[in-house]
Amino acid sequence: MKVRTGGVTAAKGFEAAGAEAGIKYKNRKDMAIVYSRRPCVLAGTFTSNVVKAAPVLWDKKVVEESPFGQAVIINAGIANACTGKEGYSYCDRTAKAAAKALGIPGESVLVASTGVIGMQLPIDRIEDGVVKLTKLKEATLAAGTQAAEAIMTTDTRSKQVAAEFEVGGVKVTIGGMCKGSGMIHPNMCTMLAFVTTDAVISKELLTKAVKEDVVDTFNMISVDGDTSTNDTLLVMANGMAENPEIKDNTPEYEEFKAALHYINESLAKMMAGDGEGATALFETKVIGADTKEHARILSKSVICSSLTKAAIYGHDANWGRILCALGYSGVQFDPEKIELFFESKSGRIQIYKDGVATNYSEEEASKILADPEVTVLVDMKMGDQTATAWGCDLTYDYVKINADYRS
Amino acid sequence: MKVRTGGVTAAKGFEAAGAEAGIKYKNRKDMAIVYSRRPCVLAGTFTSNVVKAAPVLWDKKVVEESPFGQAVIINAGIANACTGKEGYSYCDRTAKAAAKALGIPGESVLVASTGVIGMQLPIDRIEDGVVKLTKLKEATLAAGTQAAEAIMTTDTRSKQVAAEFEVGGVKVTIGGMCKGSGMIHPNMCTMLAFVTTDAVISKELLTKAVKEDVVDTFNMISVDGDTSTNDTLLVMANGMAENPEIKDNTPEYEEFKAALHYINESLAKMMAGDGEGATALFETKVIGADTKEHARILSKSVICSSLTKAAIYGHDANWGRILCALGYSGVQFDPEKIELFFESKSGRIQIYKDGVATNYSEEEASKILADPEVTVLVDMKMGDQTATAWGCDLTYDYVKINADYRS
Repeated sequence: MKVRTGGVTAAKGFEAAGAEAGIKYKNRKDMAIVYSRRPCVLAGTFTSNVVKAAPVLWDKKVVEESPFGQAVIINAGIANACTGKEGYSYCDRTAKAAAKALGIPGESVLVASTGVIGMQLPIDRIEDGVVKLTKLKEATLAAGTQAAEAIMTTDTRSKQVAAEFEVGGVKVTIGGMCKGSGMIHPNMCTMLAFVTTDAVISKELLTKAVKEDVVDTFNMISVDGDTSTNDTLLVMANGMAENPEIKDNTPEYEEFKAALHYINESLAKMMAGDGEGATALFETKVIGADTKEHARILSKSVICSSLTKAAIYGHDANWGRILCALGYSGVQFDPEKIELFFESKSGRIQIYKDGVATNYSEEEASKILADPEVTVLVDMKMGDQTATAWGCDLTYDYVKINADYRS
Repeated sequence: MKVRTGGVTAAKGFEAAGAEAGIKYKNRKDMAIVYSRRPCVLAGTFTSNVVKAAPVLWDKKVVEESPFGQAVIINAGIANACTGKEGYSYCDRTAKAAAKALGIPGESVLVASTGVIGMQLPIDRIEDGVVKLTKLKEATLAAGTQAAEAIMTTDTRSKQVAAEFEVGGVKVTIGGMCKGSGMIHPNMCTMLAFVTTDAVISKELLTKAVKEDVVDTFNMISVDGDTSTNDTLLVMANGMAENPEIKDNTPEYEEFKAALHYINESLAKMMAGDGEGATALFETKVIGADTKEHARILSKSVICSSLTKAAIYGHDANWGRILCALGYSGVQFDPEKIELFFESKSGRIQIYKDGVATNYSEEEASKILADPEVTVLVDMKMGDQTATAWGCDLTYDYVKINADYRS
């Protein structure tokens, strides 16, 4: 597998665009399209929130019932969540507008929204936006970037990634984009992520690969513990690489999964590191756990702890809060046996062993914690299972952004 | 039941004091004693965190194994958590020092600590402090206030409450104090709370009453989702009211439970409203739930949501976040059927019904949310079970306090 430039338009046959539709923001792109020249098999995972936004209900239906998907229309500014029947009818109208402009069936159009909950979409502007997008769309990498920019809300930077690998001597490409900064939490936590590939792969196997991978990628990040009503990951495979079909239990499937994992993990980490108000990506790696599930629970508990997140912001080696977060995770362990380390590009330091603090230097620890990517390494000394979770620090700006998000 | 002034010294035979021991702070009281002239039956609940501070381990042993308790020594500044065998030995030394000065058995002395995790106590200063406290202790209400002040950490005000009621024509008094501001979360979330009563009641019945009541009081508050290593509630009953013994399944027991509930709920709400950096007490009342447990889970989910807490701080009627928090709580419901209201002393307003926002006035909602005590009322329309949870808003100051707590 080789990392390459680009995002949703990296793979063959995918086009994209971003456009200004004036939904809520002024003077910025706020709608995007991702389009495939050939119909795609689809896989998707969606929010586990009981309160599901209209576009989530729409996309679940398309992913489950339609044999193929071909276009996604995305808007930022309004989430189309808690909008009742009227909100759902706007998904239908958006899809119909796209279907008409593109000459494809309405049931192959997916929709996604992000922004304020509870407001109705200005559907006329959405329909105008759809027409604009279908005219603008291109297969260039620049067009993919335009789309990635258009779907941002409180994100401070657009997020995309791409990779390529070979299947039977044929180059296959996979790429993705996402947005997400607030309302990010385990249980399909992305807000919105779109992955495109030209691989030839069945819907069943694509679904399996996605399902296996999200538990270690998107479901391992948290910005604020709030699982959104709109979380959506869509993966589209159009087969235009014309590789020999990827089959289960083959080295090619493993290669595909490695590339998918790279895309998903990269996008997930980008979201965590760009958490609302964040100044640092905060990673927690648990090793030596007795089970994989325990490793996941423990690592997520640490990155979700408000007190720990505030300490990371303060570059304060307040390791007691980490131990505290492990302790209330629900996993049983012996606090006297585990070991804690801080790690970053500035170095690595052991801070806790045999039930007490090591004789570490506060100055050195503070220096490690001042880096933009900080890792807490936890050795449970109970087995050989590992997991990694990603979050961010808790800052004044998180409060500022969220005390005044709607205005 | 009648509310009265005072705290831990309101009930007959209880003495208290606060003193400067120079543990971590300068020029403030940082140690307290609560002492009963007669041995007390004890009940206690403690943190569910796997990582338990040394004083928690000590007190669990005393509550479970000693027939009586007679004194509690409390210090602020250092939590004596994650301090290994050395930390536990300091509990023993503290208890021995108190036992010697008071002429009571060491196993009837309880200890409690709050503050930074991972540091060892300066045991010499603690021992000196114990001697000071035993000389200073008095049965006056003022002495109770001194104790309540001495146990504060990031609290902005001391917290105490008292009430009296009659059993067989005899006046019985109950009072309490607590501290707690950060690291407050369901599952025995108090940090430290001490309740004293002169009631004649058996240890078994006292334990039952406390156990039944904490699930609706201390376990229903959260400031930041971090369950502390030190959470402790101790209830001491010395029998000096000389009432006819309170027996199970009697009106007198119900009267006692009502008074205990008033004390516990008052202390719990004081902690939530004085959450680190808080400007408002944020209450969520769930009515019409199908089960009590669901009502509890739903109400706690709302008061724990960082996004909702930030919106309360901004006086922003961002009700979608409330619906979102209900939705990810794990309880199943139909979002189209439930109703949401905001309430405060400024009024009451319905904001959500039939799956969409009502036509409420943003200005009016904002005015309601600007009060120092704000309630979200959720009607689930599924049954007749209710629960109330208490938290606080999320502010810049929460971040400030916790990014720099140790320095």
